[in-house]
Amino acid sequence: MANTYDAAALRRADAESILHPASVAADVAANGPAGIIASGRGSTVVDVDGTELLDAVGGLWCVNAGYGRQEIGDAMAKAAGELGYFHTFTGMSNPQQIQLAEKLMGLVPDTMGRVFFGSSGSDCNDTLMKIIWYVNYLRGTPEKRKILSRRQAYHGTTIATASLTGLASFHKGFGLPLPEVIHLTAPDYFRNATPGESEEQFSARLAAELDETIRREGPETVAAMFAEPIMGAGGVIAPPKGYFEAIQPVLKAHGVFLVADEVVCGYGRLGTWFGMDSYPIRPDMIATAKGLTSGYFPLSAGFVSHEIWETLRDGSATMGAFAHGFTYAGHPVGCAAALANLAIIEREGLVDQAADTGAYLHRCLNETLADHPHVGEIRGRGLLAAVQLVEDKAERRVFDSALKTAGKVSAATKARGVLVRPLPTVDSLAMSPPLVVTRAEVDRLVGALTAAIDEVTGSAAAPLARRA
Amino acid sequence: MANTYDAAALRRADAESILHPASVAADVAANGPAGIIASGRGSTVVDVDGTELLDAVGGLWCVNAGYGRQEIGDAMAKAAGELGYFHTFTGMSNPQQIQLAEKLMGLVPDTMGRVFFGSSGSDCNDTLMKIIWYVNYLRGTPEKRKILSRRQAYHGTTIATASLTGLASFHKGFGLPLPEVIHLTAPDYFRNATPGESEEQFSARLAAELDETIRREGPETVAAMFAEPIMGAGGVIAPPKGYFEAIQPVLKAHGVFLVADEVVCGYGRLGTWFGMDSYPIRPDMIATAKGLTSGYFPLSAGFVSHEIWETLRDGSATMGAFAHGFTYAGHPVGCAAALANLAIIEREGLVDQAADTGAYLHRCLNETLADHPHVGEIRGRGLLAAVQLVEDKAERRVFDSALKTAGKVSAATKARGVLVRPLPTVDSLAMSPPLVVTRAEVDRLVGALTAAIDEVTGSAAAPLARRA
Repeated sequence: MANTYDAAALRRADAESILHPASVAADVAANGPAGIIASGRGSTVVDVDGTELLDAVGGLWCVNAGYGRQEIGDAMAKAAGELGYFHTFTGMSNPQQIQLAEKLMGLVPDTMGRVFFGSSGSDCNDTLMKIIWYVNYLRGTPEKRKILSRRQAYHGTTIATASLTGLASFHKGFGLPLPEVIHLTAPDYFRNATPGESEEQFSARLAAELDETIRREGPETVAAMFAEPIMGAGGVIAPPKGYFEAIQPVLKAHGVFLVADEVVCGYGRLGTWFGMDSYPIRPDMIATAKGLTSGYFPLSAGFVSHEIWETLRDGSATMGAFAHGFTYAGHPVGCAAALANLAIIEREGLVDQAADTGAYLHRCLNETLADHPHVGEIRGRGLLAAVQLVEDKAERRVFDSALKTAGKVSAATKARGVLVRPLPTVDSLAMSPPLVVTRAEVDRLVGALTAAIDEVTGSAAAPLARRA
Repeated sequence: MANTYDAAALRRADAESILHPASVAADVAANGPAGIIASGRGSTVVDVDGTELLDAVGGLWCVNAGYGRQEIGDAMAKAAGELGYFHTFTGMSNPQQIQLAEKLMGLVPDTMGRVFFGSSGSDCNDTLMKIIWYVNYLRGTPEKRKILSRRQAYHGTTIATASLTGLASFHKGFGLPLPEVIHLTAPDYFRNATPGESEEQFSARLAAELDETIRREGPETVAAMFAEPIMGAGGVIAPPKGYFEAIQPVLKAHGVFLVADEVVCGYGRLGTWFGMDSYPIRPDMIATAKGLTSGYFPLSAGFVSHEIWETLRDGSATMGAFAHGFTYAGHPVGCAAALANLAIIEREGLVDQAADTGAYLHRCLNETLADHPHVGEIRGRGLLAAVQLVEDKAERRVFDSALKTAGKVSAATKARGVLVRPLPTVDSLAMSPPLVVTRAEVDRLVGALTAAIDEVTGSAAAPLARRA
């Protein structure tokens, strides 16, 4: 695909003007951006120099419907021409947000009572924390305020949601987490199971830790637990067998809400509409974003149960207006983008396709890499996957983090025209391609990743165990 | 303008599915939304029943370029077709964010070193708080962490930024503000000046309070002060004479950063590009959003000084990547929307037009309402204005808040086809119309507002002092 950009001028301007998120500032200042993506179609993006890359990350776990969906852009243009903005404060509304709300309430479990809109997964989880505190205030238990999260969790990057996030790099230097947040052991069987412990035993141990933690803190002080169905940025950690079955009775016994953070898993990623359709999760609240618009527009949708909604509604009598909300909540253009995106996902059967292509991806990864001496585990479900690098397979010993092995493998994969995401904390490579990714593209992805791992680790698996 | 919506069905679906921001939940559930806006053009919006309303609030202080700008929608469609999303993490970029960054760095003072992007004023201020903490950590003063704000301030609605916000309703029930935030006296001359105190004396007193507060807390613990050039939601409070001149030397003496929250004032609202062009403000950081896209796309742009940028850059050596950032940061579609919006503002000279029409608005408000027995003050600058209601003009005594006078005036103005925004905390009516608002529309606005005040207060000003 051709473009008319002056790449050198863009690089210079970027280096001189932009503070990039999650980037090494000195590198960008000295060398310019790592890449400038100018266009995309399907699962492929093209940079300003014309280099095509298979984006096996789907942007940032979000481009579910794929790139180049003019249909979503046209829906945005139409909505913007009609009503480019209006607020939803003081009971005001617009047709697009109502149509989207109706649609979404039909997709989530009928235990959900209401939806509220925002612009990001971060603001969605931040809002849910506020709702949890507010509801407990209304119920006369304002001291029930502590929030449980898990190490390796990713729940956002505002001050409050970066506190929920259980990755040390998001806390260091910021003076976080906030004292209200308590982090539990990650349900990461590879890293945290004891020798000989079964998945079920591991889950039971985590449930016991949860129970002990709540009792230690005092159940009257513990309000909620946040959990991704499959942890995303923390390593694509699927729950061990029996995990949600074990922890939910503990939460219920202590009157602690469960919040399902579906920002990564939602809208088809796992081959089901939501992560809670793949695992037995019965949340009190749900956070969604990313796949809701396939990333084309910043939009989040949070859900609260009927019981929580009723407390909020009845609280109006004494509190008046619920004094929370974002300027762009229920944005008519964003809701139109989401409706167009969901129409594509439904019309093209992308949820089922994700299940099918996802199964193929995991089969290929397992056939090719399961026996690789430097692959410790292949994780995930549907079109969400990670490959765990190890120095010693038998001992599950990872490489020295100073070697930055995942980063090197990611770079070597990119050199082969494929984008995967390094997760340095767990020395893994993550994949979450658009749901439209083809089997041929999966073959390319697995081939490139395997060659990159071979190159970086300098050691290939037994040839018979690998795909050509 | 005709539309094909089933208004009754929309009302029912809204009532049954949406938790509205800043709304009385029980009212929406029982009666449906207060209104459903379906389209807009210029300064006028139209609801699903076909009722036209002059939107003198500009959505939520944001629709600077006016409604119906197909040009912005078309830019979004084009960008979405090319590249509907890509992240800007790990040094990645896209042409739209670079072009916008270059454009914006040319608009802000050259003391600014870098821009970072987000999706809302809230996430922008939240990010600035994190940067303030991070920079002090890097500089070896991690305990320099407390943030000063003012009562009546509005800085956002995440847990951290709702803490900055100085309105009690945004704290009650949420257990906020966070302990790091300290609120100072609002620079609200009408409410807070002592009898006989001049504006300059009032400003000097507030500067002394600031100095005492920093000394009491310990300068080594106070990191920054957030301030809107003109406070928005807190009452459209313009700084009293000499205010910024008095407080900035105090901040400088104690090494306390000044953050200018330009979310409402930015991009032409006051008849200058930014509020800091109307008042002598020399910030270390700047937050902008709203007018950046005229609300058509959720986009924020925050700016940090060269000194702060250099600390961040040099911190890379020890900290690696700056571990903060939002999925939608530097969104290619949003940056394209902002570029189209800024092109309109420049091409049509809307900043100068805001100065001109704004002067006309204030002249009309003063000629018509300054002598009204129930108007205590007319505030603001450019196309940002508020009318203060009073029960007793001479004594500056406001109505009993239980009467909800501003809410009633707002409803009576709406009945006359004009939207103004009630600010219950200060019993005032706020206006921030699109910058394209015409003089004829200003006449309608002032006429409707005056009639509504007359109706609600049951008392008109001397006829000679009023416009026909």
